[in-house]
Amino acid sequence: VQTPAISPMNVPELIGRVRQGDVRALARAVSLVEDDAPQARQILSACFPYTGSAIRIGITGAPGAGKSTLVDALARRYRAQQLTVGVVAVDPTSPFSGGAMLGDRIRMRDHHDDPGFYMRSMATRGSLGGLARTSADVAVVIEASAKQRLLLETVGVGQDEIDIVRLADVTIVVLVPGMGDDIQTLKAGIMEIADIFVINKNDRDGADRLENEIRSMQALATEHGTWIPPVVRTIATTGAGIEELEQEVDKFWSWLALEGRLTARREAHWRARVLDMVRQELLSTMRDRGLDDRQLAEIGRQVVLKQQDPYRLVPRLVEQLLQGERHGKD
Amino acid sequence: VQTPAISPMNVPELIGRVRQGDVRALARAVSLVEDDAPQARQILSACFPYTGSAIRIGITGAPGAGKSTLVDALARRYRAQQLTVGVVAVDPTSPFSGGAMLGDRIRMRDHHDDPGFYMRSMATRGSLGGLARTSADVAVVIEASAKQRLLLETVGVGQDEIDIVRLADVTIVVLVPGMGDDIQTLKAGIMEIADIFVINKNDRDGADRLENEIRSMQALATEHGTWIPPVVRTIATTGAGIEELEQEVDKFWSWLALEGRLTARREAHWRARVLDMVRQELLSTMRDRGLDDRQLAEIGRQVVLKQQDPYRLVPRLVEQLLQGERHGKD
Repeated sequence: VQTPAISPMNVPELIGRVRQGDVRALARAVSLVEDDAPQARQILSACFPYTGSAIRIGITGAPGAGKSTLVDALARRYRAQQLTVGVVAVDPTSPFSGGAMLGDRIRMRDHHDDPGFYMRSMATRGSLGGLARTSADVAVVIEASAKQRLLLETVGVGQDEIDIVRLADVTIVVLVPGMGDDIQTLKAGIMEIADIFVINKNDRDGADRLENEIRSMQALATEHGTWIPPVVRTIATTGAGIEELEQEVDKFWSWLALEGRLTARREAHWRARVLDMVRQELLSTMRDRGLDDRQLAEIGRQVVLKQQDPYRLVPRLVEQLLQGERHGKD
Repeated sequence: VQTPAISPMNVPELIGRVRQGDVRALARAVSLVEDDAPQARQILSACFPYTGSAIRIGITGAPGAGKSTLVDALARRYRAQQLTVGVVAVDPTSPFSGGAMLGDRIRMRDHHDDPGFYMRSMATRGSLGGLARTSADVAVVIEASAKQRLLLETVGVGQDEIDIVRLADVTIVVLVPGMGDDIQTLKAGIMEIADIFVINKNDRDGADRLENEIRSMQALATEHGTWIPPVVRTIATTGAGIEELEQEVDKFWSWLALEGRLTARREAHWRARVLDMVRQELLSTMRDRGLDDRQLAEIGRQVVLKQQDPYRLVPRLVEQLLQGERHGKD
């Protein structure tokens, strides 16, 4: 038996408290969504109407680029202007450890008594693509708690991370000088998703060279429309450049508001999200129809023994599942 | 009209040539699978019986760790022993650019006239999880062309990459000295998947310290059974340490062969693969039933306008799709 506060019946009450800025209620709602609890869908549905007006800012970059410090500095700046801030920090580089969490607690401490600030961090959990989905859902709940700026922080190295950043209206790619030639590949990869570049740790050697590299890559990239991503130089630890970064976010936001660009971005986001949700829902239905762990284990065993050819088995299996049959052990 | 050589009718002939070591036929079969051509499933089904006897070696590590050079050195060593070698190199850090391909062509040149060696490299393409799936399928085709060693090379930073490495029987994690504290997170993340650690660029400062760090992390990790991953020091560019690496792979392979460990690993791999294949098959069926791009675009539009709550819409939509109805525009 669960406590009344999180029973399905009381989701409207929980969300009522979330909307009034009750931090404990928010933490609870986020956990239920993150854990994919039975109430998760009802919570998300209740939060959904209160989303859409926050500016969603994605911040990505290689490990060690100083993203956390930059996010903190930007959050503090928004808070100083009385803007409410939510942060979703995702660290998929720690798939098995909870390493991110410790730093998280340290970061939270600074905002301990500030009801206008909320942060949740996540490491990879569960299956492929799960993290992008979960962070999108968590962002919905946090935004519904009357947050005006939503900062989505992740490590920009794989497809997963890029999918996370796709939640954002504005994407900031953080680079640091002197990370060597190996970083070039990474830079090329995330070049196309950047709306704003930040050169953090700008006091290090090589900042000019890095800016030149970005500029020369920009000369090659032509598909970005009329927006040429600016390069902002920061030292997040001292706050240098953060004001300029904030201004560039505002400038981009103004550009995005024109000609239906923001709408187009958000539509693209929801297209992908809905497809992913459909995929999840289908799998969960199939699980109910017998495609459970036991069944999969048996199939795995047969495939390794070469008793089954998976490429022939799967279409047959799916056909049976769609007909609502429980697939037997044969 | 396609050329006769790749028409569906001629898949048995194509695979016959693949098995006889015809490199052009192999390249063709791999491309058809990579492009998810209509013949892809038939090709995979025809190749499947000829898989299972190669040793699959996954090599992962941060960008710049020298994985490519290491893979080349290991491949050359195997070739010197008349062992046939296939390489699947995956670089998900370049999701939008084809940067990996250039280096690939340079690497291929060395083995140009060697029918016992085949390499294919891939960058991220398409949707979430697609790369892990495609590389698994490509590995099946390459292995069926009578390859005794299959090297799977990827950048070990996200969930995607870890899923790619899960194809392997043996997982080698490559680290380099002096990459700074930021790499710690990454090391913690891939700690648990390593069967063998390689410290490459061993002539750099900090190799001893790095080995000590690995050893002290190993002292904490207890879940690895009776196998304690060895640390092999290499300088891939000179070939130093490659012989020892090869020996450690053999040792691990012998350990894996005992007590059903290899079978258990491969069963786990196929469990996950079959589930993923089912997911794909379901989605493709749903597409045939009307959940196409046009439909998804319309849903995206309605969600952004708040005319639809996605969390309520999706269960309804899936129910309709499962009943075989075409979902209308309402």
